[in-house]
Amino acid sequence: MITSAANQQIKNLIQIGRKSKARTEQDLFLVEGIRMFREAPRDRIIKTYVSETFYAKADTPAMLEGLEFETVSDHIFKLVSDTQTPQGILCLIRQYHYTIEEILASRNPHLVLIENLQDPGNLGTIFRTGEGAGVTGILLSRNSVDIYNPKTIRSTMGSIYRMPFIYVEDLASVLPALHENGITTYAAHLDGKNDYDRENYKNGTAFMIGNEGNGLSGELSSKADRLIRIPMEGSVESLNAAIAASILMYEAYRQRR
Amino acid sequence: MITSAANQQIKNLIQIGRKSKARTEQDLFLVEGIRMFREAPRDRIIKTYVSETFYAKADTPAMLEGLEFETVSDHIFKLVSDTQTPQGILCLIRQYHYTIEEILASRNPHLVLIENLQDPGNLGTIFRTGEGAGVTGILLSRNSVDIYNPKTIRSTMGSIYRMPFIYVEDLASVLPALHENGITTYAAHLDGKNDYDRENYKNGTAFMIGNEGNGLSGELSSKADRLIRIPMEGSVESLNAAIAASILMYEAYRQRR
Repeated sequence: MITSAANQQIKNLIQIGRKSKARTEQDLFLVEGIRMFREAPRDRIIKTYVSETFYAKADTPAMLEGLEFETVSDHIFKLVSDTQTPQGILCLIRQYHYTIEEILASRNPHLVLIENLQDPGNLGTIFRTGEGAGVTGILLSRNSVDIYNPKTIRSTMGSIYRMPFIYVEDLASVLPALHENGITTYAAHLDGKNDYDRENYKNGTAFMIGNEGNGLSGELSSKADRLIRIPMEGSVESLNAAIAASILMYEAYRQRR
Repeated sequence: MITSAANQQIKNLIQIGRKSKARTEQDLFLVEGIRMFREAPRDRIIKTYVSETFYAKADTPAMLEGLEFETVSDHIFKLVSDTQTPQGILCLIRQYHYTIEEILASRNPHLVLIENLQDPGNLGTIFRTGEGAGVTGILLSRNSVDIYNPKTIRSTMGSIYRMPFIYVEDLASVLPALHENGITTYAAHLDGKNDYDRENYKNGTAFMIGNEGNGLSGELSSKADRLIRIPMEGSVESLNAAIAASILMYEAYRQRR
């Protein structure tokens, strides 16, 4: 059992939890909790860590069968955990490396393009809702929040394991590939002519979602095939980015069902 | 200028920020930032506090004209502020007291019933999106998060000033009044027969939204007129509560436009 914060594995887990750079270098990320453990593809789990208390539970041995694992004293486990009341299990998982070809391979793709989104909860929620709405892939600009941030991972509620995604240096540079695949790009924009529900999303569709404070950059939205409006009553000037994305994704899904 | 944390007003502001009980007793809540200040109804602002640095800005005197205000040293202002980088302005605002009659007074009300929601960000987001979707009022069970929590207030983005709402001891007890006003209640539920977009929301409509982890109580959902489903692809078992509410509210708004 690991009982010291000076243990090399513990130091590394803390780094992986905190630093995007450490995650990238080691090609790993951390997931926490029973649900995230159960949903993890077995061939991606590099190592599992359980707290002393968790290990003592009757069903833990069966749960860990066939997996490489370490037991960690409760006190030390708490140091590594990102939550206030840790469930007592976390895993190191191998990162995903999708290609743009994989993401464009499905018939009539339903994509989300994310530019410079900063809030971990928003990004995780877009993954979760996107999976629910049948989104086929998510493309993110490099300056968006890291999907492997523990807060983001948690709010995906497991969709991280199932939603294809790719970070690209520049979203504008992938638009030609989208067009070649018959995909129409839509940007929610104040200058939009049509309400979002007046467009046809049954063919290849990509929604552009921008930064929480500033929305989409002019550079990217000017390259969208269609500017659309999400109508708003009252004095509301904009919707939360994850909410706007969800309304658009579920409208496309409504039309496609 | 207030320069001491021992100042009675500062102590009280901290209480109001932190304690629901203090807010209720004094019938006040705190709002922070320029946007929340500008949107605040003037007759509800009890007192405004600005940081030393904010007060020194050229346009601050005009902004504060006719208002009772205090200047606070930057260091002390930071103690009161709920944000990491305070903008330097906050106000004490008088709480709202809507009646169920006011909330039911509009033609074909579009209501949201919130049971035991716990996340401040989710509640604020439902207020914000609800205003955008033309929601006429929000009824909350007493065990839901306090709308006057500073985190909730912030995520309403000003909708707190405009969205009628009321906390009730027991949501089930208001259902007869809703029925008398021709309102149909809808609960998103795994046993729902119809997809949410197969119902007609043009007449009086109330959506029930439950707790983040547990959903709606069986007691309340069993009293809903209609159980509906938000369809989900993949392995998604549920959506975030604010996302589910937003999809429903915007579907009703889509039908009503």
